[in-house]
Amino acid sequence: MKTLRDIGENNLLRGLLPRLPQRADTPVGPGDDCAVVRLPGAADDWLLTTDPVIEHRHFLPDTPARRIGRKAIARAISDIAAMGGQPRWILINLVAPAGTPLARIRGLYAGMIAAARRWRLGILGGDTAEGAALELHITAIGCVPRGTAVLRSGARAGDLLYVTGALGGAWLPGSRHHLLFEPRLDAGRFLAERRFATALMDLSDGLAADLPRLLDASKRGVRLDAAAIPISRAASNTDAPLRHALEDGEDFELLFTVPPRKAAAFEAAWKRRFPKLPATRIGAILANPRQRDILRPDGSASPLAPGGYQHFLSRKSP
Amino acid sequence: MKTLRDIGENNLLRGLLPRLPQRADTPVGPGDDCAVVRLPGAADDWLLTTDPVIEHRHFLPDTPARRIGRKAIARAISDIAAMGGQPRWILINLVAPAGTPLARIRGLYAGMIAAARRWRLGILGGDTAEGAALELHITAIGCVPRGTAVLRSGARAGDLLYVTGALGGAWLPGSRHHLLFEPRLDAGRFLAERRFATALMDLSDGLAADLPRLLDASKRGVRLDAAAIPISRAASNTDAPLRHALEDGEDFELLFTVPPRKAAAFEAAWKRRFPKLPATRIGAILANPRQRDILRPDGSASPLAPGGYQHFLSRKSP
Repeated sequence: MKTLRDIGENNLLRGLLPRLPQRADTPVGPGDDCAVVRLPGAADDWLLTTDPVIEHRHFLPDTPARRIGRKAIARAISDIAAMGGQPRWILINLVAPAGTPLARIRGLYAGMIAAARRWRLGILGGDTAEGAALELHITAIGCVPRGTAVLRSGARAGDLLYVTGALGGAWLPGSRHHLLFEPRLDAGRFLAERRFATALMDLSDGLAADLPRLLDASKRGVRLDAAAIPISRAASNTDAPLRHALEDGEDFELLFTVPPRKAAAFEAAWKRRFPKLPATRIGAILANPRQRDILRPDGSASPLAPGGYQHFLSRKSP
Repeated sequence: MKTLRDIGENNLLRGLLPRLPQRADTPVGPGDDCAVVRLPGAADDWLLTTDPVIEHRHFLPDTPARRIGRKAIARAISDIAAMGGQPRWILINLVAPAGTPLARIRGLYAGMIAAARRWRLGILGGDTAEGAALELHITAIGCVPRGTAVLRSGARAGDLLYVTGALGGAWLPGSRHHLLFEPRLDAGRFLAERRFATALMDLSDGLAADLPRLLDASKRGVRLDAAAIPISRAASNTDAPLRHALEDGEDFELLFTVPPRKAAAFEAAWKRRFPKLPATRIGAILANPRQRDILRPDGSASPLAPGGYQHFLSRKSP
């Protein structure tokens, strides 16, 4: 009997997504960082996304509760950043065993409340239920000026590929990046408003898992320049920095493409607007969707191997 | 060390809800069946709600997968019915052990897809994650003409209390009501559009648990007429039909109040519009919020005891 373990999350979704019923008022349905909904006459499109944060998957039993709460909110609004939008409201489902200490539950909510204040989100409510493990399910709703959401599907041949920040090691000892990352809200809005980005997504499962999703959506290939990939300090201190940068999950940096004719203006504007946040050019988009190569630091080119985290299948995250 | 079991869901929420940050564009925040969000100039208000459906709580390991999928959607849109709204979109978070048979997952989605088609919902996407038990978390988004959502808080002294359908026994052997119930969408919209209902909610945790929530929100009391409560066939075939009608969860009927001056017009209009669905008068709202009595069939009156299902605390549901 076939199970989820036999096919993994990607294949599961590939089979399911085309079958999900859609309404005419939905310019972007499932498969991007958020869905986009458009109402007649409205100045803004709506962005909707939902994200689980689950014990033993996204945090550990000894992770401080406030940090779990912060992470749950930050993960969800990172998906809104990845469309170039502004998050506005969240809904929270809490699942917990009845024996969960009240102090831990209060800590979770303290973390979520502090995060909501910081990012000016309204908490619209949600539900609570008893279950086997501690979980938060966050639905985030945001807005973007009508027609300006940046999708995964817009990359064109010749576009340059960029990533914010530095990649890898979010879960390595000494790093708390998976808890303390900054959702790239300002950067996402900048890319959308200034119309620099043709395609945009956030990195949650590792560059080697997420870049192919952008390429699949855009029906394009890539030449990735390994030597250019910015590597986090935590990943640099390992025996395999590049592997960590490619395959570790939970970077929550933005991955995006910029047309070559806009690249100089983009890079100059970015440096003025985000002097402390690097945006690094790590490759270029190719016309042939089957051509997906990584140029190694030694000068050799090889096919970009699938990697990174995939639910049900791989065993890389905690 | 205090745990969730020591205080229960009601006390947990009572402590949390007032602390959740709100935005000015949110006429109704947490605590009702849905939150209500209003955008400048929009003809419709938005309704938002999220609901978990969890193995061993809301379904059993041998519950057919398609029925679980249907139930998950129906539960969530019942909350939109309970505001008088029209459901439009849903988001789905799936949690499952990696060893879950693919056939079961496909059955869940087949049930959700069929439900979405039937109720004309777009499925906007969601997320999947590995976890200890099978769970669906459904976020439902709906619309209602601006300012017409019916809240729990509108009941006034003298209003008459009504319930749709028949109560109790959703989980009793021989009943599959908890799987096959009909969300009262048409009834909810009728009550809102015709402005008959002053307060409205759906019954998910049992009348004895949910009626006090409506009364608390309205700051009112009640005289409940036990002999008038419509009792389901499954509950009637037990030794304690009234107790089942009061305390069993998952009726998903509507509970609402109607001003006495509108009662005759309401009852006549209801019978024309819903000839097959009874709306039964089961009591009256009292001014004093501490006076909450049940008039027993033997003519005696006694305080309405709290009951029904409460997460973390009680052990009534499966």
